[in-house]
Amino acid sequence: MHGYQHEDLSDEQLAALRGLYEPFTDSVRNLVDATLRTTVDAAEIKVAQAAIEAITERLRADQLPGSYGVRYSSDGTTRPWGNAVVGLRNPIAPPLSFRRDPEGRADCDFHLGAAYEGPPGLVHGGVSALILDQALGEACGAGRRPGMTGGLTIRFLRPTRLGDLRCEGWIDRTEGYKTFAKGTIGDAEGPTVEAEGVFIVPKWARALFDSAQDQQAQPDRFE
Amino acid sequence: MHGYQHEDLSDEQLAALRGLYEPFTDSVRNLVDATLRTTVDAAEIKVAQAAIEAITERLRADQLPGSYGVRYSSDGTTRPWGNAVVGLRNPIAPPLSFRRDPEGRADCDFHLGAAYEGPPGLVHGGVSALILDQALGEACGAGRRPGMTGGLTIRFLRPTRLGDLRCEGWIDRTEGYKTFAKGTIGDAEGPTVEAEGVFIVPKWARALFDSAQDQQAQPDRFE
Repeated sequence: MHGYQHEDLSDEQLAALRGLYEPFTDSVRNLVDATLRTTVDAAEIKVAQAAIEAITERLRADQLPGSYGVRYSSDGTTRPWGNAVVGLRNPIAPPLSFRRDPEGRADCDFHLGAAYEGPPGLVHGGVSALILDQALGEACGAGRRPGMTGGLTIRFLRPTRLGDLRCEGWIDRTEGYKTFAKGTIGDAEGPTVEAEGVFIVPKWARALFDSAQDQQAQPDRFE
Repeated sequence: MHGYQHEDLSDEQLAALRGLYEPFTDSVRNLVDATLRTTVDAAEIKVAQAAIEAITERLRADQLPGSYGVRYSSDGTTRPWGNAVVGLRNPIAPPLSFRRDPEGRADCDFHLGAAYEGPPGLVHGGVSALILDQALGEACGAGRRPGMTGGLTIRFLRPTRLGDLRCEGWIDRTEGYKTFAKGTIGDAEGPTVEAEGVFIVPKWARALFDSAQDQQAQPDRFE
């Protein structure tokens, strides 16, 4: 199933993994921010670098041969812990945690710090595109219309400041294997960026998509 | 100048800073990858987390109050070391290093690992959008038509595998303060994603843009 790994875990097992990896990954996110903003002297930087290299070597003593992939369980729920936007275990993901509405909506409050900067003090335009791609995909998944992005159009309405933000995505309409979704990123004053996208059920997943009598039995995302 | 800091450095000073921060930031990128892929046991994770927290605390002993911003020098060149795509000091940036052609072209060979994943084994669609936004902006800057992204349209032609990739951007046409740019991401078999975008000179920079008799004296980017 193209890199999707079947893995059934009990609620307790899942809670234990989350309890281990969430604070660990957060500690690396915090280090990422400090790495970019630190003004300590060269000697301190070299001490930090040596310590980081030693930790990395210990972590690599036992590791996945490639990327993390996506794990799924028998009830159709997925665990995209490696995902660049929502991945619990991915330090470059802020990470966003979407509320999903089965009507085909998803929304999320989130915070972007120094690592997501483009113009000074502002969110990188491409980071907004990255987040909106995910938000629209989440809305499709929430509405049991998962797909891979076919196209995405972003309009920047005004600058987006680093800080506390919100994004929303929703299904606009469907046509066969295509789902058209829309969404926004915004701050306290309203939307700053808006997006439209088309999400397409991959060819390899169409039989599964077609035959799903029980819609709950199909994966809720392809990413 | 809206978060742009003037900072003239000699070539030697710049080389020294680069020599210090480039390997340091790379060590954090390597840790990010290991954090996501490690399968060591819980005790080892906890040891790593404690060590990371200790390093972060030392780095934060002296730090910038906010985000990194963009530094520029008297010759108009900029140092976007905090940028989420090209930032030498930003661990979430791969980072990309663009060759810039004054004809208004920019291109770059790069590698994306596990941290940039969306669907299993594939580059996150939004990461492609992020990189293309930067590539198009670099092309505009290279052609001395810097701007902030007004709109961006991405078409996904086929899946992009994690690994060695290439991107290109070029100016398609200009209209007053607007520059229209196009670009692609591709692998050894050709393009996988294509983009079009419009980049707009910000209002606060228009007087500078208009008055620049010596085009070399204006910044080569706004992000």
